[in-house]
Amino acid sequence: MKHEEWVRTELEKWSKFFGFHYTPKEEIELRLQKVREEMGRERVEALLVVQKMDCFYLSGTTQDSVLFVPLEGEPLLMVRRELERARVDSPLQNIVGFKSVREVRALIRKHSGGLPETMGLEFDVLPTREYYRYLEIFPETRLLDSSSVMGHARQIKTPFEIEMMRQAGEIGRKIYEEARGFLEEGMTEIEFGGMLDTAGKKYGHEGLARVRSMNYEAYTWHVLSGPSGGIVSQSDSPMGGLGLSPAFPVGGSLKPIRANEPILVDFLCTYHGYMVDMTRMFSIGKMDKKFIAAYDATRQIHDAVLEDTRPGANCDELFRKSVQVAHELGYEDSYLGPPGLQTTFVAHGIGLELGEFPYLAKGHDYPLEAGMVFALEPKVVFPGEGSVGIENTVVVTEDGYEILTPLDEEIYQV
Amino acid sequence: MKHEEWVRTELEKWSKFFGFHYTPKEEIELRLQKVREEMGRERVEALLVVQKMDCFYLSGTTQDSVLFVPLEGEPLLMVRRELERARVDSPLQNIVGFKSVREVRALIRKHSGGLPETMGLEFDVLPTREYYRYLEIFPETRLLDSSSVMGHARQIKTPFEIEMMRQAGEIGRKIYEEARGFLEEGMTEIEFGGMLDTAGKKYGHEGLARVRSMNYEAYTWHVLSGPSGGIVSQSDSPMGGLGLSPAFPVGGSLKPIRANEPILVDFLCTYHGYMVDMTRMFSIGKMDKKFIAAYDATRQIHDAVLEDTRPGANCDELFRKSVQVAHELGYEDSYLGPPGLQTTFVAHGIGLELGEFPYLAKGHDYPLEAGMVFALEPKVVFPGEGSVGIENTVVVTEDGYEILTPLDEEIYQV
Repeated sequence: MKHEEWVRTELEKWSKFFGFHYTPKEEIELRLQKVREEMGRERVEALLVVQKMDCFYLSGTTQDSVLFVPLEGEPLLMVRRELERARVDSPLQNIVGFKSVREVRALIRKHSGGLPETMGLEFDVLPTREYYRYLEIFPETRLLDSSSVMGHARQIKTPFEIEMMRQAGEIGRKIYEEARGFLEEGMTEIEFGGMLDTAGKKYGHEGLARVRSMNYEAYTWHVLSGPSGGIVSQSDSPMGGLGLSPAFPVGGSLKPIRANEPILVDFLCTYHGYMVDMTRMFSIGKMDKKFIAAYDATRQIHDAVLEDTRPGANCDELFRKSVQVAHELGYEDSYLGPPGLQTTFVAHGIGLELGEFPYLAKGHDYPLEAGMVFALEPKVVFPGEGSVGIENTVVVTEDGYEILTPLDEEIYQV
Repeated sequence: MKHEEWVRTELEKWSKFFGFHYTPKEEIELRLQKVREEMGRERVEALLVVQKMDCFYLSGTTQDSVLFVPLEGEPLLMVRRELERARVDSPLQNIVGFKSVREVRALIRKHSGGLPETMGLEFDVLPTREYYRYLEIFPETRLLDSSSVMGHARQIKTPFEIEMMRQAGEIGRKIYEEARGFLEEGMTEIEFGGMLDTAGKKYGHEGLARVRSMNYEAYTWHVLSGPSGGIVSQSDSPMGGLGLSPAFPVGGSLKPIRANEPILVDFLCTYHGYMVDMTRMFSIGKMDKKFIAAYDATRQIHDAVLEDTRPGANCDELFRKSVQVAHELGYEDSYLGPPGLQTTFVAHGIGLELGEFPYLAKGHDYPLEAGMVFALEPKVVFPGEGSVGIENTVVVTEDGYEILTPLDEEIYQV
């Protein structure tokens, strides 16, 4: 059997067995239409999509590729490895192989009958060295920053994407339910985190938490018990935790989990590339009433923000409302971090990556739109003692919102 | 208690409990000396180190920072978050806080009494958008690509770094031993991968596999059983596996592990930021003699490469020797991948990141030096059936080599 046939037969067999959701042709067309609207607005004649998640969004494959998208005419997917697998994944018509980035120019010229005058690349992630290489390869074409084209298109999720996130949320629900069964006193934070991850993997949780920016890292074992929750680290987050070393100073640590401590479990679940972010509180026996009251306050803040969540609501105002409610409830010094280190967002966009729009954050003066998805996470931090909070991933609907992480909101006491 | 004092007291308590290895002052000085030698060779007057692992290498902290390193005079660590924690982590003398990258210029000027004429940044990872921002901030300074300065300095590991990797290897040894106890027929590949990860986390394995290049991803659950091992994916690797979806089409899948299949377990273990990479074969009951023979062949190839491993040995020649031995043993079509998709390296450098020098690869015409560390991974792939291989992380010593992953090399049969 020829290699191409073999790959196709083998993948067909297994993908049916696993229930792979290949991105349908109509879905890709819908996304291309959204991207082209943004291209028209920013007057860019073509895109060369170089980043893996942007490429997946518009092609349906994460095989090693670059994608040429002209404002008019068919896109061209150029695949370095593995061509046959990309052909199985992607409903695009024009898919060719290449070995070196130097061939990209000739392939585009052959496909389009010429080269564009302006071409956008994602400058927010494209390494400077690669940028210089593209400048050399395309001396007649003006290269532009198309990060916002991709960012704006991707911030409004399609029904297909929302369904993937709903399924991720359902896996998350199972993980938290099962966790009641394996959390034990004396277990370390990091071990509990590992078990949560493994519980999810059984259902297809992908384990990898993708982040767009250089230097920013995400992981799933953000389990902070008692005093660990009072410690801030390098990430722009209300609490960082102790982590495992100065090289990885965030998240679960080797600290044993003790009875009656507040145990904050902030977990990212990924299904078919789509992430949802969620936080719930656990305790072994009852936690101190100070923490119970603070957790209740974060639920009130969460609900107050959702009360105003609908298309047209202003993101900066939603953030300010969360701060106002926190202050009214008496958490002025502890809301979103210890004094002096408080963060200035209560929700971040999420989808194929962490660090998408919208942000419910200070200065983010734009309206919500239907299809936007954000992770809403009001949290309260007591240095030296612990932290509490709730987090749900929420999609803005035509007349309000839907929670994509419908987990029990009571404390998971074991 | 003031915030600074509190952070210091709290971290002191826990870091002792966990056994954190802070990077000693002499170690940082040794690394600075190596980097400055490269700076002198490349005629760059100063570095602005912007990437997290480069910054950790020269400062001892992974707090959100940029590091200014003049060829002469003291370095300046500028910390965005969390300043107090960076002060605990790093033995550097000059550590200041900042909020916006615009302040960096004034801080450097104040520290050095002027600005350098040439300054190197890591163009191999610096996003184009940030590059343009630095061009604006430093109009009088010529910005250069210092990727190779960092790459060359970091490729020779210090005794401190080798010790961290030795400890990572020891955790790896425990993981593989324990895995005999929990591998069961019917368990999915991905679940077994999750359990391996959790087993390591108990001993301080950090779970995160850091990769330098955009779009390249690493993970620890590379468990490929039977036919999964015959499938190639987007990574430059002999086998990719089925993965969990088109969005994450590599590594362990939802395929149940069956008796008598070859089970390839390729695991990255991280300790204090330092990774080691290792592969061993598992089976439930006995695997077919075809796979046993092929695994034995990969061990012979592995040993043949190590036989010539010492300072001065040429990396391209070591790669070609591995190919020659594979051909002599009858694995011409299956060595390092299926026909037409064979990779052209048998070892990659490793340390704080995947994708370090050296590569034992086609065209890598340079000599090994003492202190270089690489993961040597001869593998054999049978499409539709499975793959086998061995991998060890090895440090080049003055007169030969030391294996940093001293795991049992027999098949882990349960």
